[in-house]
Amino acid sequence: MRTKQEYIDGLKKMRRNLYFNGGKIDRDDEVQVSALNVMGMTFDEAASPEGKDLCTATSHLTGETINRFCHVHQSPADLHKKQDMTRYLCKKVGGCIQRCMGVDAINAINAVSFEADKLNSGNTEYHQNFLKWLENFQKNDLVGCCAQTDMKGERLKRPADQADPDMYLHVKEKTKEGIVVKGCKLHISEASIADEILVVPTRALGPNEKDYAVAFAVPADHEGLYQVIHPHNSRPRETYQRGFDGGYTDSYLLFEDTFIPWDRVFLCGENDHGGICALLFALFHRHSYSGCKPALGDVLLGLAATAAEYNGIEKTSHVREMFSEIIKVTELGYAAGYTASDFGKPEVYIPGMGRAPYGPGSYIPDSIYANVGRCLTGEAVFHEQEMLCNIAGGFPSTFPYESDITNPELKPILEKYLKRNPNISVDDQIKFWLYFIENTCTGAAGTMNYGNYHGGGSPIMEQIAITSQYDIKERKRLVKELAGIKVK
Amino acid sequence: MRTKQEYIDGLKKMRRNLYFNGGKIDRDDEVQVSALNVMGMTFDEAASPEGKDLCTATSHLTGETINRFCHVHQSPADLHKKQDMTRYLCKKVGGCIQRCMGVDAINAINAVSFEADKLNSGNTEYHQNFLKWLENFQKNDLVGCCAQTDMKGERLKRPADQADPDMYLHVKEKTKEGIVVKGCKLHISEASIADEILVVPTRALGPNEKDYAVAFAVPADHEGLYQVIHPHNSRPRETYQRGFDGGYTDSYLLFEDTFIPWDRVFLCGENDHGGICALLFALFHRHSYSGCKPALGDVLLGLAATAAEYNGIEKTSHVREMFSEIIKVTELGYAAGYTASDFGKPEVYIPGMGRAPYGPGSYIPDSIYANVGRCLTGEAVFHEQEMLCNIAGGFPSTFPYESDITNPELKPILEKYLKRNPNISVDDQIKFWLYFIENTCTGAAGTMNYGNYHGGGSPIMEQIAITSQYDIKERKRLVKELAGIKVK
Amino acid sequence: MRTKQEYIDGLKKMRRNLYFNGGKIDRDDEVQVSALNVMGMTFDEAASPEGKDLCTATSHLTGETINRFCHVHQSPADLHKKQDMTRYLCKKVGGCIQRCMGVDAINAINAVSFEADKLNSGNTEYHQNFLKWLENFQKNDLVGCCAQTDMKGERLKRPADQADPDMYLHVKEKTKEGIVVKGCKLHISEASIADEILVVPTRALGPNEKDYAVAFAVPADHEGLYQVIHPHNSRPRETYQRGFDGGYTDSYLLFEDTFIPWDRVFLCGENDHGGICALLFALFHRHSYSGCKPALGDVLLGLAATAAEYNGIEKTSHVREMFSEIIKVTELGYAAGYTASDFGKPEVYIPGMGRAPYGPGSYIPDSIYANVGRCLTGEAVFHEQEMLCNIAGGFPSTFPYESDITNPELKPILEKYLKRNPNISVDDQIKFWLYFIENTCTGAAGTMNYGNYHGGGSPIMEQIAITSQYDIKERKRLVKELAGIKVK
Amino acid sequence: MRTKQEYIDGLKKMRRNLYFNGGKIDRDDEVQVSALNVMGMTFDEAASPEGKDLCTATSHLTGETINRFCHVHQSPADLHKKQDMTRYLCKKVGGCIQRCMGVDAINAINAVSFEADKLNSGNTEYHQNFLKWLENFQKNDLVGCCAQTDMKGERLKRPADQADPDMYLHVKEKTKEGIVVKGCKLHISEASIADEILVVPTRALGPNEKDYAVAFAVPADHEGLYQVIHPHNSRPRETYQRGFDGGYTDSYLLFEDTFIPWDRVFLCGENDHGGICALLFALFHRHSYSGCKPALGDVLLGLAATAAEYNGIEKTSHVREMFSEIIKVTELGYAAGYTASDFGKPEVYIPGMGRAPYGPGSYIPDSIYANVGRCLTGEAVFHEQEMLCNIAGGFPSTFPYESDITNPELKPILEKYLKRNPNISVDDQIKFWLYFIENTCTGAAGTMNYGNYHGGGSPIMEQIAITSQYDIKERKRLVKELAGIKVK
Repeated sequence: MRTKQEYIDGLKKMRRNLYFNGGKIDRDDEVQVSALNVMGMTFDEAASPEGKDLCTATSHLTGETINRFCHVHQSPADLHKKQDMTRYLCKKVGGCIQRCMGVDAINAINAVSFEADKLNSGNTEYHQNFLKWLENFQKNDLVGCCAQTDMKGERLKRPADQADPDMYLHVKEKTKEGIVVKGCKLHISEASIADEILVVPTRALGPNEKDYAVAFAVPADHEGLYQVIHPHNSRPRETYQRGFDGGYTDSYLLFEDTFIPWDRVFLCGENDHGGICALLFALFHRHSYSGCKPALGDVLLGLAATAAEYNGIEKTSHVREMFSEIIKVTELGYAAGYTASDFGKPEVYIPGMGRAPYGPGSYIPDSIYANVGRCLTGEAVFHEQEMLCNIAGGFPSTFPYESDITNPELKPILEKYLKRNPNISVDDQIKFWLYFIENTCTGAAGTMNYGNYHGGGSPIMEQIAITSQYDIKERKRLVKELAGIKVK
Repeated sequence: MRTKQEYIDGLKKMRRNLYFNGGKIDRDDEVQVSALNVMGMTFDEAASPEGKDLCTATSHLTGETINRFCHVHQSPADLHKKQDMTRYLCKKVGGCIQRCMGVDAINAINAVSFEADKLNSGNTEYHQNFLKWLENFQKNDLVGCCAQTDMKGERLKRPADQADPDMYLHVKEKTKEGIVVKGCKLHISEASIADEILVVPTRALGPNEKDYAVAFAVPADHEGLYQVIHPHNSRPRETYQRGFDGGYTDSYLLFEDTFIPWDRVFLCGENDHGGICALLFALFHRHSYSGCKPALGDVLLGLAATAAEYNGIEKTSHVREMFSEIIKVTELGYAAGYTASDFGKPEVYIPGMGRAPYGPGSYIPDSIYANVGRCLTGEAVFHEQEMLCNIAGGFPSTFPYESDITNPELKPILEKYLKRNPNISVDDQIKFWLYFIENTCTGAAGTMNYGNYHGGGSPIMEQIAITSQYDIKERKRLVKELAGIKVK
Repeated sequence: MRTKQEYIDGLKKMRRNLYFNGGKIDRDDEVQVSALNVMGMTFDEAASPEGKDLCTATSHLTGETINRFCHVHQSPADLHKKQDMTRYLCKKVGGCIQRCMGVDAINAINAVSFEADKLNSGNTEYHQNFLKWLENFQKNDLVGCCAQTDMKGERLKRPADQADPDMYLHVKEKTKEGIVVKGCKLHISEASIADEILVVPTRALGPNEKDYAVAFAVPADHEGLYQVIHPHNSRPRETYQRGFDGGYTDSYLLFEDTFIPWDRVFLCGENDHGGICALLFALFHRHSYSGCKPALGDVLLGLAATAAEYNGIEKTSHVREMFSEIIKVTELGYAAGYTASDFGKPEVYIPGMGRAPYGPGSYIPDSIYANVGRCLTGEAVFHEQEMLCNIAGGFPSTFPYESDITNPELKPILEKYLKRNPNISVDDQIKFWLYFIENTCTGAAGTMNYGNYHGGGSPIMEQIAITSQYDIKERKRLVKELAGIKVK
Repeated sequence: MRTKQEYIDGLKKMRRNLYFNGGKIDRDDEVQVSALNVMGMTFDEAASPEGKDLCTATSHLTGETINRFCHVHQSPADLHKKQDMTRYLCKKVGGCIQRCMGVDAINAINAVSFEADKLNSGNTEYHQNFLKWLENFQKNDLVGCCAQTDMKGERLKRPADQADPDMYLHVKEKTKEGIVVKGCKLHISEASIADEILVVPTRALGPNEKDYAVAFAVPADHEGLYQVIHPHNSRPRETYQRGFDGGYTDSYLLFEDTFIPWDRVFLCGENDHGGICALLFALFHRHSYSGCKPALGDVLLGLAATAAEYNGIEKTSHVREMFSEIIKVTELGYAAGYTASDFGKPEVYIPGMGRAPYGPGSYIPDSIYANVGRCLTGEAVFHEQEMLCNIAGGFPSTFPYESDITNPELKPILEKYLKRNPNISVDDQIKFWLYFIENTCTGAAGTMNYGNYHGGGSPIMEQIAITSQYDIKERKRLVKELAGIKVK
């Protein structure tokens, strides 16, 4: 396994294909540093005494100890540990840990490539190619990310019905050596700090949309791939230092007739499997949210409770009700993921067929529990921000700039007034509110809300998953029997 | 184990102390029949091939097979089975199964009596007396209920501060033979069809409230005990028969200087333990709700989905969103209970001390998960009714009486119009709406909402439990560290 | 104008066409008495010094003083008075005043019949016939009700697409003397205590649905009309008397090939006008809700505040927040109606055309304000019940029967315990909770919720009215201009 | 009346007391330009044919035409026009118009200074001094702002109980010439672009807090006054120009033993009047929100509807429900303000006394309606943002920077993909999303939410106003009478 430094050294060698603010940048550009700090934590903690049990696993391919973010889940215990690792690491960085996209994509492709080969009666070697790719990925402790979301064009039209066929990434050409793809994948978190990008379809596909049923892996600096990045960093600090400086970036990934060799292609043309791949990645990713959202809940509660403490209102019933609300969402989200892990099986829901065995035996979390949990935490995002706003009062919205607080002419005056709670040092009060602001009143905080709401699928996507997969018919039967209606 | 008939025969022998509608009634009076049907299911299913695995357990006292409602939980597996038995049985009767009060009280008293003896350094024999009582209870397969809620008087005043000291049940006198108690316990579900009543305190108690710290068991027809009952039955049917005829009753239990012999007293004067007993019964009971509320969710979903089917609107997105909401509450409530079971330990939260080992080793569900689950399902009650109302339309509120539908002059006309969905037989449509009405627009439905909201503790009680037991300080520490504040 | 007694004497003379509980009943049957008490208030108050200013108006036909419930609104001041009269009377009876259906139907038909005649270039005399009917109606101070809601069959299918064409009332035959209609109108409040029934269409209609575009008036005991009633009364009291004994009834109105003479037909075949008639009645009726729902809000607040007072929790912040919520809904509902009145004009929204002058100059409230107000109060219904439940605690759900409280054996014991608040007489506490129960935990309360939610159109109907009538395009233009987009 | 340019020229002459980002800035510094654009609109529109009717008034002091923002309301019609002017201007700038603070403070002080003189039996000349100040203010068309919010320290402690007495601004010394004050007023919108600052108390005050009962006016560049500003601007654009470039600033106002001459002091030591002044300014300001929040609702609806149009989902029922929700809040907020205007009187609610005549006869909006409206719109803020997020999808959170879109290497590729809706020019789509982002995902948007939530008083402040001023007792009386309880 690598160290954070080895990981960064690897990135430095990559082709310059990151575009930002009108030009190109290096992968270790200062605008990327905060995000690298976050990703670095996944290396540090795999080596730390406290973190290594959660953050490593035993490869089912090689038997070697690997980073859990490179692992294919072999048991409910693996699912539990993945959930707990995610909560653990997200708390360390105070936000998204960014590396779960990769492990979720690996697990989805692992199952789908296996089944696609079965469909093709051995005429394809997707799964073997994938396992070969995976062994290298595990051995070199690479960082993977997942490119799922397409540009989508007009939202109510299917891929095949768009005015511009490139609104969803698709295969333009197949040759003996490989395939040529075109399209734009967007909102791709951590792509600019990843080693490998795993591309999967974004939705269910019809028989006339086989070209859109494609999954593959490419190095993040692959020829023919442009990354336009959008960083989400906090304003740099000079005097009042944070405990941890984290940030994140998203990329538009522009595939401009990009060539992918066959040994990196894991699905190509199997439209039903393409749909299941989309659904399966989403399922694994919603399970990841059962780790990260509880961690965000821990941070939110800490923000709320410290704001209340500093404002001197921690004991009021009104405020404690809000604490309870945050805890409720946090721990219900965790319990849903816990139950999804415990009920995990090598099975998946297949539209029209119900749950059925799927893949080579690796473990998949229960879909209903993964979805109800993610739905709850997604729907809570803006209400949680409202509670922070309620407890904080207007303070965060007009707080002086760091440079004004340290202006010698103003410092004594401002420090006097910013020391609102006489029992807390003014420096601590300043540090706290600056951190609070970064979680509530900045551009990064605004985009974080969008990510927390839509990431892994908007609440409406989980609602659709829930109602299409739940056995509603059985509940109707139950009620009809209770009502005295004969049910065949 | 007994049969339903043996159970009813036992009740028939009891002293006539049930008061209803201006007079006294027998325990098998017609007003009690629907409730007896519900309770009977707990006997039937303990003997049925399908139900016996969930509904029986092995006594840790005798090693014999007993009804699980008489059992002290010995493992997380027992907690899982208790949750699943509750959901299973509640679905059978389409509502509350009524017998959980007993098992929850047993488990609370089992732990508290043990600890109280420890406090008293062997000068009391609460726990031995309890075990002796329990052995008989298990052997005779008795139905227990729990009397917790007191009249409470002015809600913001403590027991010792009430104008009338009897507003909370308390010990008036102690003799060599036993104690004399006075007070009124109300909202006591199934007391009028129970064999035994377990009395526990209703709240935390101070050193000046030792007389209120009392727990004991009495036969439900005990001398000096009056039961004023309030039945909640559906209107009798003549033509359109239900699939199951269930109902329930609540009692006011009036203890008028009632004598309790010492071998039935399990706590008397240990005020801290009295408070924990109240809290512990509530905890076990909230765990029961993680079984019954998902079952009610199953029924609600069945009602909603069948109403939508019969109204021809089952596919609209608006309606499916409501299905999703019901499923979400149902399965999050279940997941919370599942996690509480899995995290169960012989431990309890003790105010001011945090979680600590408690009792003789029997298992207690995790309090945070039990509370967040119950809080969610409690808060959902009226919104769930709103969704049913939304989907049903006004139909249930003015549906003709059964006797008008069968009036020969009206029958052909009304049947024509009540056959709104041409694909469903009119009899089925009538049966369904009559059943729907009984779950939404009757006095019984109205009181059911109150029970589902307040039973096991109102949402505000769970909020208090959550915020007082959760480690908020740790979340503040986390945020302060992230913010760069030194935390000692 | 008539007295309550004269009104009842009139009803007694009517043909026996009320069906209830398997037989037929008289109009002054005891099951109708509570509803007659409510309607009687509209006569009493038109004659009372306090009420007469609000409850009477000057007929624009005759210049005579008439009951305002028989009046066609001539000005914004009339609209204000109608709103305030409604609130005033609903407070007197503690619920729905029942007579607004008539006045709302009159005002809708007045405008639509005028326009239909215009369309027909004088070949019809709907409006003249209506005015003749109205003059008699005003002169004899008759009680009108409105029959709008049809059986509707499968909800997503239009009238013309139903398997059974009678799922919406329609014209089966036209003769020189009149028309023959068939269909079932349901949920028709107060039809069993009305003198006249005004029938209007229930929805927008296409050119192939002209037979469904019919409006007319019939005496409530008309030949060929069956009324199947569903009363909503409170349990009779013997000892603890209410201050006012009110109730209500709904009817299924079965039109079995019923003949209507032409001079009572006000619309017949003009499908566009049929749709506007439906919309216009709904609009006037939503305006009525801006009077009655604030009155119900007054009652709800009184219930909540008295429950809090009797429970001794009136000062807690938690409870006061709920008071605030009830007041907010109440007064926003009132303000919406007030603004709708003040912005009233002889105009209506016509689909595809926007607002345009309509009718003979009588006043129509502003549709947007009438709709947002009704939508708010409709959506609040179940949450308001939740707040009452929260404040009351479980008390109302298991309260002893009156006959048990007065049972001499129990009376002293129960009175001791029911006197929970030592500062209030026990009789007052008992009376209050009995009244509280009738508003929350009875069948009548359950159906009241359905009426308060769906009456005048479910929230979703108001949402549709709002989004189809509001100038959304103008808001898009505004934003596009702010964004720098050229808008043609 | 002045022009925008004359107004800016006036600001340029002021003393440099604005501190920003470590130094001092001029009042026409580029960081202030966007805010000056907003304020400039109040001058432009007072002179425009379309705007002048709403934006001007006739001075009751001089009879001259003045800007309405300098006016004391003389009638309900004035209140209506103030509400409508606010909505009109806020739509012009797409946000807060910033000048209402001044007019609201003027109206509050006008009434309170009059009453304080009465209390002091003519020994003070607050009102005369105020009118003299006002005449000059009107004549020179000055921009006023209001400094109300204090630092507050520990929130549950009163001013007199704070560890640091300066946590609320107060009088330190009185001399023959004037008073010396100390304290920090924060969140003072537009103070850095105002001519005059009106200082008023922030809360109710006890007899031991007379020093905190002080109101006065100072020029914004007054000696002894420091302004630390916090601007909220959008990122500058180079290619894709906005239609209007607006922004705003807030100031910390540091009064460091600042001297105020008596002729600018309008209250000094009358603690009851200090509390009413706080309450009265809040009331006028909540009435202002009945103009600005509907305008923001217009913008929100435009954002939502255009996002839906560009995403191709404008017709889905799910989206239309959200439009309806936005409209409902918008127009209920407007209706509440409309009713508050119409019910306006020269009266105010006085704690312990109820509503009573107050001030010299100028008009005050009805408090209940002003409060329920503001409460609704405040509570809606985060839910409205959630709806925008729901409709927009993730798009706004990772949108490329302007500089990347115009990067020649990327431009053709990005323009292809950003043209998601084939019917809309890509430039318009880009402009729209950039504007959308500025309203949702930027630091300015985050602080705007805080302002919209807390400005004019947080929802909890309105709840307190509502429950303390509403006649709850009367509703209890009503219910008790209905229940049959004798009320004295």
